[in-house]
Amino acid sequence: MPFKSLEDLRLACTNLPAGSESAAAAVAARQDTLTKPQGSLGRLETIAAWLARWQGRDMPKLGKVKVFVFAGNHGVTAKGVSAFPAEVTVQMVANFSHGGAAINQLARVAGAELDVIALDLDRPTGDFTETAAMDETGFLAAVSTGYDAVTEDIDLVCFGEMGIGNTTPAAAISAALFGGNAERWTGRGTGVDDAGLKRKVDAIEAGLVRHANALSDPLAVAAALGGRELAAIMGGVLAARHRNVPALLDGFVCTAAAAPLARLHPQGLAHATAAHVSAEAGHRRLLEALGLPPLLDLGMRLGEGSGAAVAINIVRAALECHARMASFAEAGVSEK
Amino acid sequence: MPFKSLEDLRLACTNLPAGSESAAAAVAARQDTLTKPQGSLGRLETIAAWLARWQGRDMPKLGKVKVFVFAGNHGVTAKGVSAFPAEVTVQMVANFSHGGAAINQLARVAGAELDVIALDLDRPTGDFTETAAMDETGFLAAVSTGYDAVTEDIDLVCFGEMGIGNTTPAAAISAALFGGNAERWTGRGTGVDDAGLKRKVDAIEAGLVRHANALSDPLAVAAALGGRELAAIMGGVLAARHRNVPALLDGFVCTAAAAPLARLHPQGLAHATAAHVSAEAGHRRLLEALGLPPLLDLGMRLGEGSGAAVAINIVRAALECHARMASFAEAGVSEK
Repeated sequence: MPFKSLEDLRLACTNLPAGSESAAAAVAARQDTLTKPQGSLGRLETIAAWLARWQGRDMPKLGKVKVFVFAGNHGVTAKGVSAFPAEVTVQMVANFSHGGAAINQLARVAGAELDVIALDLDRPTGDFTETAAMDETGFLAAVSTGYDAVTEDIDLVCFGEMGIGNTTPAAAISAALFGGNAERWTGRGTGVDDAGLKRKVDAIEAGLVRHANALSDPLAVAAALGGRELAAIMGGVLAARHRNVPALLDGFVCTAAAAPLARLHPQGLAHATAAHVSAEAGHRRLLEALGLPPLLDLGMRLGEGSGAAVAINIVRAALECHARMASFAEAGVSEK
Repeated sequence: MPFKSLEDLRLACTNLPAGSESAAAAVAARQDTLTKPQGSLGRLETIAAWLARWQGRDMPKLGKVKVFVFAGNHGVTAKGVSAFPAEVTVQMVANFSHGGAAINQLARVAGAELDVIALDLDRPTGDFTETAAMDETGFLAAVSTGYDAVTEDIDLVCFGEMGIGNTTPAAAISAALFGGNAERWTGRGTGVDDAGLKRKVDAIEAGLVRHANALSDPLAVAAALGGRELAAIMGGVLAARHRNVPALLDGFVCTAAAAPLARLHPQGLAHATAAHVSAEAGHRRLLEALGLPPLLDLGMRLGEGSGAAVAINIVRAALECHARMASFAEAGVSEK
């Protein structure tokens, strides 16, 4: 287990490697020689530079692309915050392993390996309206699971999650880290009705009051108001930084899970790109707070890493253009 | 040549087949059984229904996907409206055939066949500030070339273009069809400076005055103010409708090229999806006027069909989810 104490973890979150300026500069210089008006590929150009900077390679590659889906269960579902029963988490994990879920199709289309990691599904976290979701040991174990999953041989990593009820901890973390009341961050998740939305807001408000003394420390917020799959995502995104792996974030839950890293270090998510903005109410607001413009805006709100997987092909398109286009000189095309 | 007169063509533009309601309904019904909250795949769900409706198949397919790039040269470049010299059109067509351009990489990544069709590059159209870009015969020939290219065996077709100076006819057509002065529709294209932008606006204003008597007829607008590659795109989009091929539009030039179809019939572009919104100033406005929400917004402004090609993978993702996800019953997942 890489983190034996909160202070171990805090050190890893604050001592972050910078990206490679020289690799990003090499990409930008090459882009300007390719047969297109300068800048005309828009974000495809900045994505190529982002890959180079965080892989630390003048010519980035996308040989091994992984999608991690972390799954967890949540004590706060006892408060009636989800439209689906909690048993759906384990049922969907089975669906992932049989290849029947959206993320199976999307990872395959994107040429990515899918790895689903279930975290103690038969033992939900504490109900955060009454107690901390995780104690320190449990939190560090979940973070470590995510950290260990992201190995140095990966060229691009996507994070997703499955956990009935988990837009509730996501909204609670967002409110704790960025302020505003629960309503500001709370949406309908998988589709709660008005009464369910009210229960969700109430639960989040109760959690924020219960854990008021934790709100100033992003790691304490993640432990008290989060969930195991969120903690694992935070660990995975942190590992990606230390191991030179650019990361694609999925939707609201995934972004909220990673958000403590941005509160612990101003550049804590510089190696991450927001794959999409979901239809879940708080996500656009959270991305704005984090300064992460999304690649896609397709009204998706499924989770599972689905939005991140769709964005993989945009990253592949960016790299193929960068790596394989002819220069003006090679093609004999006149410049401006 | 399918169109021997403007009236032949007008008839084809006004007698349009409707899409298959039953195929679209079959897709929507299946979507609601799949293991996800209803509607949670957002536009991936509506894309699957759109494919079904316009292919006329309950289960759509994407076996043969084609990208057509039509290329043309423009007399109006004599007015100094582009940052690049006109010879770049033919140089870029050579670059396409050697595989060195952005669209070569993007079509390959998307699993699409690329077909580049150059239209009389050594004989630019008339300078529309002084004369009609094309006479009736030349216009019908270009439309017919595009129409004949889109055959019934294609499952999804993308349209793109190459033509130095062609954001000028695109802006002129947009102003003619949707009103507003030239400035409203004019952007920097491949990157003209302020003086070039002024020349561009002046040329478009002059064209609108010169051809004032054509402005009430969308086909006359396309002939007088357009270009051969734009006319071919219009023909190709029209053929796609008659041959059950859903179409992806690329950027500003491509959308302006197809726009006359929407002015000739209120559902004239119902079988087309806007692949992206480009950074070229008039495109967002034009898509709003046409009621076509773009799939992507990546700040691209290259043309060549590049934005459409990037969007192909989103369409593939939509179909894979639709075709291969498990239902709640199959996967044993509890519903709401």
